[in-house]
Amino acid sequence: MSERLPVAVDAMGGDNAPGPVVAAAKIASEEFGVPVLLVGDPDRLGDVDGIEILPASEVIEMGADPAGSVRRLKDSSIVRAAEAVRDGRASSMLSAGNTGAVMAASLLRIGRIRGVSRPAIAVPFPVIDSTPTTLLDCGANADCQPEWLVQFARLGTAYARTRFGLEHPRVGVLTIGEEAGKGNALVKATCELLEDGQWASDCGANYVGNIEGDQLMAGVADVLVCDGFTGNVALKSLEGAFAIFRKALRADLATNTELAPVLPQIAAVTEPWFNFFDSGQTGAAMLLGTKGISMISHGSSSEMVLANAIRTADEMATADIVTSFRQSLVAGP
Amino acid sequence: MSERLPVAVDAMGGDNAPGPVVAAAKIASEEFGVPVLLVGDPDRLGDVDGIEILPASEVIEMGADPAGSVRRLKDSSIVRAAEAVRDGRASSMLSAGNTGAVMAASLLRIGRIRGVSRPAIAVPFPVIDSTPTTLLDCGANADCQPEWLVQFARLGTAYARTRFGLEHPRVGVLTIGEEAGKGNALVKATCELLEDGQWASDCGANYVGNIEGDQLMAGVADVLVCDGFTGNVALKSLEGAFAIFRKALRADLATNTELAPVLPQIAAVTEPWFNFFDSGQTGAAMLLGTKGISMISHGSSSEMVLANAIRTADEMATADIVTSFRQSLVAGP
Repeated sequence: MSERLPVAVDAMGGDNAPGPVVAAAKIASEEFGVPVLLVGDPDRLGDVDGIEILPASEVIEMGADPAGSVRRLKDSSIVRAAEAVRDGRASSMLSAGNTGAVMAASLLRIGRIRGVSRPAIAVPFPVIDSTPTTLLDCGANADCQPEWLVQFARLGTAYARTRFGLEHPRVGVLTIGEEAGKGNALVKATCELLEDGQWASDCGANYVGNIEGDQLMAGVADVLVCDGFTGNVALKSLEGAFAIFRKALRADLATNTELAPVLPQIAAVTEPWFNFFDSGQTGAAMLLGTKGISMISHGSSSEMVLANAIRTADEMATADIVTSFRQSLVAGP
Repeated sequence: MSERLPVAVDAMGGDNAPGPVVAAAKIASEEFGVPVLLVGDPDRLGDVDGIEILPASEVIEMGADPAGSVRRLKDSSIVRAAEAVRDGRASSMLSAGNTGAVMAASLLRIGRIRGVSRPAIAVPFPVIDSTPTTLLDCGANADCQPEWLVQFARLGTAYARTRFGLEHPRVGVLTIGEEAGKGNALVKATCELLEDGQWASDCGANYVGNIEGDQLMAGVADVLVCDGFTGNVALKSLEGAFAIFRKALRADLATNTELAPVLPQIAAVTEPWFNFFDSGQTGAAMLLGTKGISMISHGSSSEMVLANAIRTADEMATADIVTSFRQSLVAGP
């Protein structure tokens, strides 16, 4: 059995980095027993409790131009983390930093799997009493071609199987009408390709056709494909609306004198639901289609959310999800 | 002063029609003093309390093919309502029925305003302590051209001014990156057109550039333009997620024995917020760009929501919003 490689964690990425990231690395290492390689400036990381450090002197800021930064900042934590994956020094990487830079570094340093035109960002959306529905692409590719969406369907199938244990994931297309043939030009062309069952039998998917936005979190599909523009707008709209709702409801409850004595009991009911619907609190996004595992967390992620993401990265590496992606892309006999 | 025309209300449209529609017509007529013309099968409407009826023997079902139904079912309530607007017998129309059929009937019977390539569906999204942010297109046009989005920006400006009293509405583009030049090909081309300030000075808009999905309900713009595919996915995703959240939270609270004594007090805090975020409870959508006023309510709308939509239709007619649309589309001096 081969040595278990560490998860390369971008210590400099995230709204309050490196604090929460280092804390997450400690939790993952000490409590979950996951080997971690912290990537960043050793002088800025503080006490890391003996966790191995891969030095990187530069930082790609959150708002920086992704591709240009990756080219220019060769000693940045994101680039070094991607190189650690490429060089077999880490099993996977995780960053809560600049999403575009993680994508660019993964593409340029780790490279695409054969048969993948463009990697896609997969985000699991929570479903009550069930496994999540994974939406992809959530922002890697603003404009897509139908063939890419078929690749996303294949990649998503392997992801749902490895990540959530679903042997034959239900795969649908996010669109604006339930009937076949409804949608925009991209969806219509994609559906024509997907209705040919060969891809589904190749990868073991259960194709379920068109799904509307109101069913995104209703548990009617395990994987939903869409272009990265639509997916990102849906993801961010939900994030924003729930954050606004949470803040308003919390403030109203907190100032209600009648309810003051039972506020903790109310919070015990409401807060878990808010956390459940808060995508920043749920599983990290994963870039599907490169020859390595790149996970992307929300910049505002708490240390526990990051620690869970590190564990997921380790689990996906142990399960050899990249091999599953490769197999899922190959045409059947 | 000309006679105040009634609002033509499709009595047969909606999940439980005609019951809630007739009840809404009574509220609008008796409590709000809005003249109503109920369009539908007189034998199925029950007691209408003396409200005028325009007979229509056919019904376009919710799932029916829109354009085909409008062509075939000439005596349907939706077609007759649109004709009442066209013929100057009604000031406006409202339906909670088949959205596509309302669009098709409006286009075919009422017709487009000169300068409008395609009408768009405008939906006001609630903003806390502020006027709503109107998103268009929310589903009329799955594929759009950049020029159409500029028309949407002009139409949306007139809508926000007339409907919400905003003299110089802030108009933005819904996209996936805050920086100029971020987005898909459609957004990039649209932004190039919008950055030329002429359209904004023509119609008195305040162009605010790119807005991301998480700002949709944050009150940073009064009007947001996008293609109808993206708008519909965003609208439906939010509707679906809030409905699921509401149901889950209600069920958990209802079965919590500790909180049982204060359930009504908790509901007094939570329910208004759920209603606030529930687009089925807020203002009806309006089709912008035809030579008449067509409003579209959610099929599940309650009688009070429908009554409010009837009042809004009447107000928009009284304010002569169609003339505002026409003026907003004309190039300045």
